Amino acid sequence: MPRYANVPGPTIRRLSLYLRQLEAMWSAGRDTVSSKQLGDALGVTDAQVRKDLAYFGQFGRPGIGYRVPHLIDQARMILGTDQTWRAALVGAGNLGRALIAYRGLARKGFKIVAVLDRDASIIGRPLPDSDGLAVLPVSTLPEVVPAKNIRIGIIAVPAPEAQPVADLMLQAGVQGIVNFAPVALNVPPGVPVSAIDLAIHFEQVAFQVAELAD
Amino acid sequence: MPRYANVPGPTIRRLSLYLRQLEAMWSAGRDTVSSKQLGDALGVTDAQVRKDLAYFGQFGRPGIGYRVPHLIDQARMILGTDQTWRAALVGAGNLGRALIAYRGLARKGFKIVAVLDRDASIIGRPLPDSDGLAVLPVSTLPEVVPAKNIRIGIIAVPAPEAQPVADLMLQAGVQGIVNFAPVALNVPPGVPVSAIDLAIHFEQVAFQVAELAD
Repeated sequence: MPRYANVPGPTIRRLSLYLRQLEAMWSAGRDTVSSKQLGDALGVTDAQVRKDLAYFGQFGRPGIGYRVPHLIDQARMILGTDQTWRAALVGAGNLGRALIAYRGLARKGFKIVAVLDRDASIIGRPLPDSDGLAVLPVSTLPEVVPAKNIRIGIIAVPAPEAQPVADLMLQAGVQGIVNFAPVALNVPPGVPVSAIDLAIHFEQVAFQVAELAD
Repeated sequence: MPRYANVPGPTIRRLSLYLRQLEAMWSAGRDTVSSKQLGDALGVTDAQVRKDLAYFGQFGRPGIGYRVPHLIDQARMILGTDQTWRAALVGAGNLGRALIAYRGLARKGFKIVAVLDRDASIIGRPLPDSDGLAVLPVSTLPEVVPAKNIRIGIIAVPAPEAQPVADLMLQAGVQGIVNFAPVALNVPPGVPVSAIDLAIHFEQVAFQVAELAD
């Protein structure tokens, strides 16, 4: 049985936001936080914070609030980032290389242990900031995923290549996908996919700025 | 008056998704689409598609559906991406360079016309894939933003530097911010900010994969 089958998706997403905020507070030397302070920092009400956290247990104490390090540990455990997630990255272009160099992922427990591309001119090349990884041909995915115990696939290829890469990842045994290609992937029901479409975030800001100007 | 003051945020976000899907369909040579087909491609109901689009006008025809190129034009006009948005990027690290090289932004009308950094060792250096841009000192933001007619600021600096960069951007006249730093920005009410926290997308997939394993 899933542990948190009844928890709404938006609550899970906010738990990530709470965790990020708590980590920032802890770095700044803060030991306790109230639901109001946590909510204010993220633009949600204190009632929402309490309701969200209540899905996972009883963490706060009336009049004291939440102990920051305890809540961080709990949130990491709930989200699964208290363990290490081994990931395969397909696409070693600019975005792929940015992901390899991005320390924020490693800090969250995500370790890119294989980088694959279909561009023959870069295969075998060592990647900067990657602990000595070299680019592998994308065709080796079926061997690499089980051999390296990979559970997460990261897609950073152009849109037309994304679906075949996703299919190959899932055949190879990848359990969840983070997709940076600007295209909706077609995967079997229940396969976790998180899509990050950079252009959409820009569009949303453009829309709001255009609204302000009118 | 804002043009679409009564349109819910989720509808605006889905309009971006519809547009992406319509563009893919148009590239594939498709001329018309029903609300059911559009919804199926994105995992929403046809009723939701019709309801969302009805906020902006009457686009479809019963029995025929929507004309793809017309709906693309309309969505771009509504979202504001039929115009060019001049942007300043602060942070010329890996992620910043990935954004410069990412053609998807230019296709959506976003043009990075200035790149700034505080690292003295890279200032003045020309950037690859950037149409000859060179890195400027971040302290020149107050001159660069008005001189280059910049409306959008892109933050791709480490978390502790993000807030001062945002403050400087807004003082310089930037109207909206796309923030890649994993920290919640504190901006005056009404300033459009879109936050892209890569780690959060990874966390959400990890959570779901962990759920499947239990």
